[in-house]
Amino acid sequence: MAPASRRRFLVGGGALLGAAGTAFGAHAALALPAEQPPGGHPGSDGHGGGVNGPTFRKGGVVDHRANGFHPAEILRDFDYGRVTTIAGGRTLREWEIYASDEDIEVAPGVRFPAWTFNSRIPGPTLRCREGDLLRVKFTNGSAHPHTMHFHGIHPAEMDGVPGIGPGVIQPGKSTVYEFDAKPFGLHLYHCHVGPLAEHIARGMYGTFIVDPPEPRPPADELVMVMHGYNTTFDAQGNQLYAVNGIPFHFMYEPVQVKRNELIRIYLVNILEYDPINSFHLHGNFFDYYPTGTRLEPAEYTDTVVQAQGQRGICEVRFPYPGRFMFHAHKSEFADLGWMGMFEVTE
Amino acid sequence: MAPASRRRFLVGGGALLGAAGTAFGAHAALALPAEQPPGGHPGSDGHGGGVNGPTFRKGGVVDHRANGFHPAEILRDFDYGRVTTIAGGRTLREWEIYASDEDIEVAPGVRFPAWTFNSRIPGPTLRCREGDLLRVKFTNGSAHPHTMHFHGIHPAEMDGVPGIGPGVIQPGKSTVYEFDAKPFGLHLYHCHVGPLAEHIARGMYGTFIVDPPEPRPPADELVMVMHGYNTTFDAQGNQLYAVNGIPFHFMYEPVQVKRNELIRIYLVNILEYDPINSFHLHGNFFDYYPTGTRLEPAEYTDTVVQAQGQRGICEVRFPYPGRFMFHAHKSEFADLGWMGMFEVTE
Amino acid sequence: MAPASRRRFLVGGGALLGAAGTAFGAHAALALPAEQPPGGHPGSDGHGGGVNGPTFRKGGVVDHRANGFHPAEILRDFDYGRVTTIAGGRTLREWEIYASDEDIEVAPGVRFPAWTFNSRIPGPTLRCREGDLLRVKFTNGSAHPHTMHFHGIHPAEMDGVPGIGPGVIQPGKSTVYEFDAKPFGLHLYHCHVGPLAEHIARGMYGTFIVDPPEPRPPADELVMVMHGYNTTFDAQGNQLYAVNGIPFHFMYEPVQVKRNELIRIYLVNILEYDPINSFHLHGNFFDYYPTGTRLEPAEYTDTVVQAQGQRGICEVRFPYPGRFMFHAHKSEFADLGWMGMFEVTE
Repeated sequence: MAPASRRRFLVGGGALLGAAGTAFGAHAALALPAEQPPGGHPGSDGHGGGVNGPTFRKGGVVDHRANGFHPAEILRDFDYGRVTTIAGGRTLREWEIYASDEDIEVAPGVRFPAWTFNSRIPGPTLRCREGDLLRVKFTNGSAHPHTMHFHGIHPAEMDGVPGIGPGVIQPGKSTVYEFDAKPFGLHLYHCHVGPLAEHIARGMYGTFIVDPPEPRPPADELVMVMHGYNTTFDAQGNQLYAVNGIPFHFMYEPVQVKRNELIRIYLVNILEYDPINSFHLHGNFFDYYPTGTRLEPAEYTDTVVQAQGQRGICEVRFPYPGRFMFHAHKSEFADLGWMGMFEVTE
Repeated sequence: MAPASRRRFLVGGGALLGAAGTAFGAHAALALPAEQPPGGHPGSDGHGGGVNGPTFRKGGVVDHRANGFHPAEILRDFDYGRVTTIAGGRTLREWEIYASDEDIEVAPGVRFPAWTFNSRIPGPTLRCREGDLLRVKFTNGSAHPHTMHFHGIHPAEMDGVPGIGPGVIQPGKSTVYEFDAKPFGLHLYHCHVGPLAEHIARGMYGTFIVDPPEPRPPADELVMVMHGYNTTFDAQGNQLYAVNGIPFHFMYEPVQVKRNELIRIYLVNILEYDPINSFHLHGNFFDYYPTGTRLEPAEYTDTVVQAQGQRGICEVRFPYPGRFMFHAHKSEFADLGWMGMFEVTE
Repeated sequence: MAPASRRRFLVGGGALLGAAGTAFGAHAALALPAEQPPGGHPGSDGHGGGVNGPTFRKGGVVDHRANGFHPAEILRDFDYGRVTTIAGGRTLREWEIYASDEDIEVAPGVRFPAWTFNSRIPGPTLRCREGDLLRVKFTNGSAHPHTMHFHGIHPAEMDGVPGIGPGVIQPGKSTVYEFDAKPFGLHLYHCHVGPLAEHIARGMYGTFIVDPPEPRPPADELVMVMHGYNTTFDAQGNQLYAVNGIPFHFMYEPVQVKRNELIRIYLVNILEYDPINSFHLHGNFFDYYPTGTRLEPAEYTDTVVQAQGQRGICEVRFPYPGRFMFHAHKSEFADLGWMGMFEVTE
């Protein structure tokens, strides 16, 4: 769907974006100067965005409690599994993951019939160390067939694709994926049942971190999964874009970080339908480790691009206090939800 | 053209994708368990894709013999030219390349009026060593004007663009492109006559490999050219996507490789109309050498993105036997043909 | 907007692209052989492009003097500001930048109501050295609210976004952005007022170069900013693509460079609406430094891709004299203006 028609949907159908004058917007947290009324300057296209950017209508937050997950909690929620030591002193990690169909309020007043891993979007961040033995019991509690396909090195039977090994897991059925954790890096998992685009777009993805044998330096670690919502289910594109489940969330509730502390962002792009996504950090630069498979950064920049399935680690320190935006440097995605703020304090 | 309307074309016009129940599909080779009927689960969009992914109708293979080329043969078909030694012990390589108009069955029952180099899509893989003298006699046997534009370092007159040197080669005419082979790396050639998009989209491209002075380590070497077919000729996008000429081919006939052997993939993207293409390998990781111009890899990953004209070398060993998918991590491209399998045996 | 309809606009509305027979085209400078009449071969889509590529109609140049800027002058126009030495021997650089609304002839007969920095597209190339103190007085002489958002490391208050520090600068108002120059590299600045897409697409961007403490090796340095024009203002895409302001300009007036001299291109992509842009150099290869933040190149290639906000330095020497094309390896962008020539002389 083209941008203009998406916006019409938002205004007409979902009533997502507020009319000028009632704005209670993404930037409300920024204590806008009174002389800068949001919206309405010449050139505004009437979709609720204006001088200060897109806005939600008054009362514009979703019910995180009803959703059952919260974008800010997902940031630092690493699931190391149930840990036991097995023969040879090796670490075994076990998880129980279930698929389920969930009705999620993805924007104020906009409900999305999602397919999820562990009832959240994105699914849990599974974390281990290279060489661990991993055992993931997957139970399909959804009304639709699903799998878990991990990016990583593993046997064909553990790949979570149709027709190989356990293949497609029907509703009510379970399987166990078991494989060694390798290689170290930042990976992901997602459902691999067709139509693949819809199974991904409905919300079936999560982050999979394999730590190197020697841990990375201590840091305040954050997971950011970039994705979208095709709320019309026309398979033509997304009407909403987000990091960690809820569009614009980190504009309302900036990511809290400490000045000069090392911040490590595990950045994953699973956006469906669009060819690329991007991440731009304001007022700062980061070291970038593509796929996280090396301990030396490949680039020092403030803007990276990722196609679907790509991911990388960003390491940054904020030398100045205050609020710094981060967003897609694709204006359309930013306007439709893919923007947020860091708040740097002493 | 947007994805949904492409699919309508396929179902209505080309009868490419099968109705549920008669599926004889891409995954047929996978010995699907009986309890996993392809197609028809809720969420399927009726285009013939289903739980197990997109399918061809019964009898769904193209006539490779009539086409005159075969995707699997293209994988390992390196054309080193006619080799002679010239003054100073230098190697001269000579090729004869012709352009011709060919009617190709690009999917079962779907014929495409292609413009080709040496009657195949992609054209022949021309291979040499850095420092060789190259002489390419190009004869235009097509009804349309064409050129050969090589990526590489060469004189302006040998660049194969309109208005410089021999310029556009009219039907029935010939020219000789002669230049030194440099720099070593993975390159490509394509027609550079306008409208450029159509001359590329019709099939006029091929791989051009310049080996380094010291050969790369021995490996099982494969050429994979990523491209598409705009079967409606509306210049709006592609209805089919492929590697080495035929959509879905390597789902029917997986690429045969040996366990633990070094595999070197020369991966080229010449896809027209779409902004990017991508390559994802299942259950494994590869070293990636962008443009192949360095002997040290730049990245270790399982997913790379290439815009048109970009290319790179992927080196991988498969530690496990079995079947592993590879495909665009752009679901739409995969659904429309850009997917395949490696079959790893002892 | 899809390519075909863009072309219809160009022919019908803007009369940009000429009819066959009156062609006085982009390639006119190339002394086309008489036997290669532009346009009209089978396969031509009637948009004025033909065998030799897209063409302007007779008399097809814009009035650079009336526009007030010239793409060729922008190539080598570095603005180092007003330089003074302050306490501790440090360098202070001061600029005065104003926003204004300008009517620009972006293609012959096609006028575009632009919003500009210092009355040109792209805005001035601001250049300094890492560690300098920078002071930019920004005055908004436009009828619309604007800011200057710099890519770089700086305090939150100096970031040029709504609601932080001086925030949005209303018409007739001024502010001063002051910060240290860091990190060294190739950066950019642009307006950050919403709707962001329009404020960028109207022309509000420029290059920001921070030289390393030890200067890079001497070279013939060029700035190339890749961008587009959405002449219909439908926010759906661009009808024209360009480097340094005027589509096709460097086809008429090739970039003059010397054989074997080191050429350093500061390449910036600020293209709005499209997901990526790309740069392909003919007959040659360049070292590529992403974001310019390192002194060692990351890649040696002839084709790079940049999403919006990405940028990089290309270093190249031309071993052969003559004319070599450079253009987006996205045919659509090239056809609509993003192509040019280098002319290499002794």
